[in-house]
Amino acid sequence: MNDARSYAREHAPRFRQQYETLLRIPTVSTLPQYSGDVERAAQWLARDMRAIGMDSAEVLHLPGGRHPLVLGEWHGAGESAPTVLLYAHYDVQPAAMEDGWDSDPFEPVERDGRLYCRGSVDSKLHVMSQLKALESLLASPGGGPVNIKLLLEGEEESGSESISAFMAQQPQRVRSDVAVISDGVVLAPQQPSLVYALRGIVTMELHVEGPAQDLHSGHFGGTLHNPLQALAEIVAQLHDADGRVSVPGFYDDVVEADAAERAQLAHSNAWSERDWEAVAAAPLHYGEPGFNTQERIGLRPTLEINGLNGGYSGPGFKTVLPQRAMAKISCRLVPQQDPQRIFDLLQQHVAAITPPTVRGELRQLEMGSPAALLGRDTRAMRAAAAAYEHAWGVAPLFERAGGSIPVTYALQEVCEELVIMGFGYRDGRAHGPNENVHVDSLERGVNAAIHFLQGIGATYNSLQV
Amino acid sequence: MNDARSYAREHAPRFRQQYETLLRIPTVSTLPQYSGDVERAAQWLARDMRAIGMDSAEVLHLPGGRHPLVLGEWHGAGESAPTVLLYAHYDVQPAAMEDGWDSDPFEPVERDGRLYCRGSVDSKLHVMSQLKALESLLASPGGGPVNIKLLLEGEEESGSESISAFMAQQPQRVRSDVAVISDGVVLAPQQPSLVYALRGIVTMELHVEGPAQDLHSGHFGGTLHNPLQALAEIVAQLHDADGRVSVPGFYDDVVEADAAERAQLAHSNAWSERDWEAVAAAPLHYGEPGFNTQERIGLRPTLEINGLNGGYSGPGFKTVLPQRAMAKISCRLVPQQDPQRIFDLLQQHVAAITPPTVRGELRQLEMGSPAALLGRDTRAMRAAAAAYEHAWGVAPLFERAGGSIPVTYALQEVCEELVIMGFGYRDGRAHGPNENVHVDSLERGVNAAIHFLQGIGATYNSLQV
Repeated sequence: MNDARSYAREHAPRFRQQYETLLRIPTVSTLPQYSGDVERAAQWLARDMRAIGMDSAEVLHLPGGRHPLVLGEWHGAGESAPTVLLYAHYDVQPAAMEDGWDSDPFEPVERDGRLYCRGSVDSKLHVMSQLKALESLLASPGGGPVNIKLLLEGEEESGSESISAFMAQQPQRVRSDVAVISDGVVLAPQQPSLVYALRGIVTMELHVEGPAQDLHSGHFGGTLHNPLQALAEIVAQLHDADGRVSVPGFYDDVVEADAAERAQLAHSNAWSERDWEAVAAAPLHYGEPGFNTQERIGLRPTLEINGLNGGYSGPGFKTVLPQRAMAKISCRLVPQQDPQRIFDLLQQHVAAITPPTVRGELRQLEMGSPAALLGRDTRAMRAAAAAYEHAWGVAPLFERAGGSIPVTYALQEVCEELVIMGFGYRDGRAHGPNENVHVDSLERGVNAAIHFLQGIGATYNSLQV
Repeated sequence: MNDARSYAREHAPRFRQQYETLLRIPTVSTLPQYSGDVERAAQWLARDMRAIGMDSAEVLHLPGGRHPLVLGEWHGAGESAPTVLLYAHYDVQPAAMEDGWDSDPFEPVERDGRLYCRGSVDSKLHVMSQLKALESLLASPGGGPVNIKLLLEGEEESGSESISAFMAQQPQRVRSDVAVISDGVVLAPQQPSLVYALRGIVTMELHVEGPAQDLHSGHFGGTLHNPLQALAEIVAQLHDADGRVSVPGFYDDVVEADAAERAQLAHSNAWSERDWEAVAAAPLHYGEPGFNTQERIGLRPTLEINGLNGGYSGPGFKTVLPQRAMAKISCRLVPQQDPQRIFDLLQQHVAAITPPTVRGELRQLEMGSPAALLGRDTRAMRAAAAAYEHAWGVAPLFERAGGSIPVTYALQEVCEELVIMGFGYRDGRAHGPNENVHVDSLERGVNAAIHFLQGIGATYNSLQV
């Protein structure tokens, strides 16, 4: 069993080079101008899957999808061995120097023990950890301990249309004994964690229109409802003074955590607080009353304004009274909240509070995804815990995470067990400028991934004896 | 006297060509990248002043100013004749195709009886009307009826720093018997009007900052006050539910118009309403209760949001919880409101309502300018009324305008009489996309300007007899 880990250690410098090659491809899935780059990355990944000895590697273009899935398979472990589906995504969020990057967002740069690049933690670290773990296993005398489906998505940051269609139409191609969603972060550099809950998400745009065109604020100012003002007035009515979402019905379906779970989660709140102080560092805490930081992230839904736009906001001043204004809005959801129902509630609320002096419209952007809640005592969860303990030297804590992985819900339906394994750190600035990983993150990720697959192989074999 | 008007009619095609040449120079004074263009336009104007026979033409760079003044003088009417200062501005607001222009904003295009170009009405129409009226007078056997100071500003849209400094430091160079501010619009194509009041203005930016950096809305959403939300909440507290500005003290210094003036202004409300329906065309009227449309424009101060910006507002979605948010805000002021005091009141109000969960700061952008109120029965006002009646065939109505001309207040201090003569139409979309004039606007403007100067000359001469 040590052969795969020796191989990984020996080839670590090349693994790092290949990781950087992938990082240099700007796989921004939300912006059409990057489509060629996303395709190029998919082809690059499929080539590497073939090179490491997988049985097949396909670049799959689904009808209605914008970017391809990459699916590699290896069934050399035999029919009696379990099949493990490894999922990660190779697309990234937009990034530009003017957002505050200290170096080119698509050129990996090492500084002070970290590697900076868009996608470094979210989620090419995970793509490469799984791919290079597989290479290490397949290159070793024992070969792979389990059969593998390596499924890499190119639309995780933009609605996951292709993978949803693929899983709806060909569920047998995904069906496996165990699914691993490889994405996310651990609690702290010295404290690994296993995520057993993810929030869902639904995204939308609020459009407010007033006059028939942009107007001179001198000639018409004071005679009509400025759309920027009206937008602000609508947005200001989405939370109450205490920070609760004030959309009627918003919390109706939320399943409250019991006292035992909240007591267990208290362990991870200390880390969340530390993280908050170090990374968020806002002037003061704010959020739903009655919950601590970890609970606000893991147990509670949110409504966030992700963008505001309208009128003139360049240098100097333009005395325009603009025709329109727009806000980007998203809700993070917790178990039992339905993305469509939440959108409908918001749409009704916006319609109810939009004054007759403007036209307001809330538009859903993506299909949305519900939250996920995983069993904490499954075979896969135990193998994952052992893998973290092996790679970090410390047993992981169990944690509810605040992010969303759209595919989770569908994967749970076609795989018996599911675990989420993230190798990033929370100060990795995913989605922000200067996204980064620690220089040893890839090596740790490869090690944990190898150990996990070996563990799953051993667990299933022991059961068969 | 008809010689100058004959000359103007004869040379109208060339006047139009020269107007278009000036329109093609993108004299955007608020954006540094256009500085070279603003300078080029200033030199072009000074050359034309010399070409038409003015005694002198200077391009004046004031310390601290960003763009030059152009000052042309002609004193050929003799010491006994009055001196008239003609003021207009040659700089323009920013413009870009993506704002909704149907053609290149800096290429004049004629369509359906109108000429479209940024600056066409605001205010190169006025620059060229005065300049070509002077050419016509100086080229005629009688010569100019009055001495002339033609002062053209390049910073009217960006704070008027140079002209303020010039007038503070060398008031004698501006001092005249009569000042004409040539800018603005008449009530309707068939109804000229004389503006006797202008609103002042003060401009500012509201900055709201929250976390130390952009964050992932999954990892931190729900634990801190989103700066976009906080900005919207602050902006929403600047007006009450009825549309009044809710900043304490905002209306304290406003001089209320008496019943007689409101009765007289009722004439122009019909035009303002028609204009509102045709150009603004918002779903419903909105504004300070107790005032009609013309009064809301002419008698009442405003607080407008001119821009909102923050987070991600491009195509698709970015689940960012942003570090900062910004709003551009301006107030239009009426007589006795002091720009600095109004800014101070807003700053205090923003400080009072900014929650401790974010940092909020209101920054003044420009010095601001107070409102202006002019006598309606002066010699200059009577000459202006006669000039409009001559050029339009209809006597003008008296009107309070909603726009601001920063230089007005200072000019009133060094000139005995002041009038405002605008030749544009209110559907000319000043400051918006598809800014335009009617194709006969320049000719009408030249005619009115010739008639006015001849009228002033005659009035002063008759007094001396």
